[in-house]
Amino acid sequence: MSAWVLPDHIADVLPSEARHIEELRRGLLDTARCYGYELVMPPLMEHLESLLTGTGEALDLQTFKLVDQLSGRSMGLRADTTPQVARIDAHLLNRKGVTRLCYCGPVLHTRPDRPHATREPLQFGAEIYGHAGVEADLEALQLARECLRIAEVRDTTVDLADVRIVRNLLAGVTVGPQLLSAIHAALAAKDAQELRALTRDFPVESREGLLALLQLYGDSSVLVEAEKALHRVSGVPEVLSNLKWLASRLEGAAVTFDLADLRGYAYYSGARFAIYARGASDALVRGGRYDEVGAVFGRNRPAAGFSLDIKQVVGVVPPRALKAAIRAPWGEGADVHAAISELRSAGETVVCVLPGHGSEVDEFHCDRELVQVAGRWVVQAV
Amino acid sequence: MSAWVLPDHIADVLPSEARHIEELRRGLLDTARCYGYELVMPPLMEHLESLLTGTGEALDLQTFKLVDQLSGRSMGLRADTTPQVARIDAHLLNRKGVTRLCYCGPVLHTRPDRPHATREPLQFGAEIYGHAGVEADLEALQLARECLRIAEVRDTTVDLADVRIVRNLLAGVTVGPQLLSAIHAALAAKDAQELRALTRDFPVESREGLLALLQLYGDSSVLVEAEKALHRVSGVPEVLSNLKWLASRLEGAAVTFDLADLRGYAYYSGARFAIYARGASDALVRGGRYDEVGAVFGRNRPAAGFSLDIKQVVGVVPPRALKAAIRAPWGEGADVHAAISELRSAGETVVCVLPGHGSEVDEFHCDRELVQVAGRWVVQAV
Repeated sequence: MSAWVLPDHIADVLPSEARHIEELRRGLLDTARCYGYELVMPPLMEHLESLLTGTGEALDLQTFKLVDQLSGRSMGLRADTTPQVARIDAHLLNRKGVTRLCYCGPVLHTRPDRPHATREPLQFGAEIYGHAGVEADLEALQLARECLRIAEVRDTTVDLADVRIVRNLLAGVTVGPQLLSAIHAALAAKDAQELRALTRDFPVESREGLLALLQLYGDSSVLVEAEKALHRVSGVPEVLSNLKWLASRLEGAAVTFDLADLRGYAYYSGARFAIYARGASDALVRGGRYDEVGAVFGRNRPAAGFSLDIKQVVGVVPPRALKAAIRAPWGEGADVHAAISELRSAGETVVCVLPGHGSEVDEFHCDRELVQVAGRWVVQAV
Repeated sequence: MSAWVLPDHIADVLPSEARHIEELRRGLLDTARCYGYELVMPPLMEHLESLLTGTGEALDLQTFKLVDQLSGRSMGLRADTTPQVARIDAHLLNRKGVTRLCYCGPVLHTRPDRPHATREPLQFGAEIYGHAGVEADLEALQLARECLRIAEVRDTTVDLADVRIVRNLLAGVTVGPQLLSAIHAALAAKDAQELRALTRDFPVESREGLLALLQLYGDSSVLVEAEKALHRVSGVPEVLSNLKWLASRLEGAAVTFDLADLRGYAYYSGARFAIYARGASDALVRGGRYDEVGAVFGRNRPAAGFSLDIKQVVGVVPPRALKAAIRAPWGEGADVHAAISELRSAGETVVCVLPGHGSEVDEFHCDRELVQVAGRWVVQAV
């Protein structure tokens, strides 16, 4: 096996894509900062119980494990940053009021999420803690849309759901964890036959409600249908009016609903959203409300937010042009050094041609060169 | 054990430090870009043989290992990025001419490098491939100095060395790997008694030369002393004149020499430099020439470069001030939304006060607020 062969679903990022990722990274962090989200940097590895206790359990299979030589304890490489940010909010910052945090860094997955997914996404996300009202959900959703706009993603669709619909339909029904996950799987697959079998012994209202969900996806008429079908289920009318309010505040967005959608991380506790775009095989953004995520760290307070993989986003938008550079001679004189420094201070890329390499093709696209004319150093078109 | 306790030498980075790190990260990447260094992003994990074969062997103890569930093979988490960038130069880019590359990302260490070091440095570095002349060493050194200037590190000292001095002193002497590493350790510790014992049976010129190195540290008079002591050792005069040339080109720098210095990664093959600063217990930058680093990837070509840990640098410079923000009401009207959008587009941070949170202390320092005066939204001092 050659030493340069990388593991499956692991890749180098070469210059033009790396530049695009870096530009987008800055744009997203700046956008979050403009909304008042403070940057935090949780570590890549933590004790397993911090990463996986409580809300993080669904991440177990996705998480690489290793042993800490200093303590002999098990550590994990983060597969998702949200539980870490909840830990920071709960334990380190521990503020009384609303706290807005954002982050950007790699996460590692034991297996790819999708057939062509990387196992090393560059996760960017933002979270708002301390406000239970739907305004926090809306702010997260608006920030997520703004982030895709910055990334120049076009033709997006916002898909709304709420995990409390299924929860309310199952309230009072005894459902073990295995059965629950089978129900979730049948809902995700929209498999009516399977769902019918699984809910055979359920009260009729639960059963009919769950089966109705399989049809409740599409445009805003879904909410009208859902009100008709589920108006007697305790809690559901409030959830539906919540979704209606959210959808009404998304100016200029194409909005769809999928009331059976439960995909993604298990820690969601309320409204959820996913943003899709033409050309992307899976959602580019997933977010919503996850009020319970800080409980394991001793602080169960309201939370909403979203995350995206910058590498995935860069993969679905056109590449960005490289800013052209200036070729300069390798010189020993103070005057040429001063000319080069001045250009670099002005943000120009100046590539010095090292002795003996004058005939090489430039790595950077150089459209100008620094030349001496009548004793002065000037920039000329090549 | 509480779920929020992090492993030793692993820490969260909270907002004010995170902002500083992010600003510095951008400044360093922009500086490298201005010098013509293209950004690459190698993966966090690779097959162990890619990370540790050949020049990377010294990193073995520092490298976390885990098993790839997809292939059953051993993978490592990178403890240093240089061997990965050499792989990219050798195999992926495979350009004929000079190639300049830079990178910035976390590395992970099984043990801390120093008593208070993090096990998750944020490594930034730059490498220049394809030029054997000392001009490449100089460019790397100048870029490294410029990076510390950008970081506002003051009172720096450049320490120069060259691994070829020891190599030339040992040329023709049969030295096994264990003895060699004992000699390196004795040189690093400046332990004359130990070095005398280890070199007991060496030819007199090698022995006297190695012992002389223990005194050869300090200012530029070291080079004069070294020329006297080592002028008969084949190859050494050229190395010394190389160091003299480098030192002469470092305008305004305090330069010292330590001809016995062999610390750091084992892959260095020529001139080496370390940059120290007041207040930092260890070098902030280490770099130099490592011509053999790409050999294992099938391309043994000249290379020089440096790396630094952004977290370490941020720890020795004063914190940066936070740009103040604007408080805005949570409003439903299109006019307030437009006012907020306009401020954010201009780069301002606008924090919306969510309903019911008006009396909370702001997370961001808000020195202004958006208020309605005579039907128009205006920014006023708080």
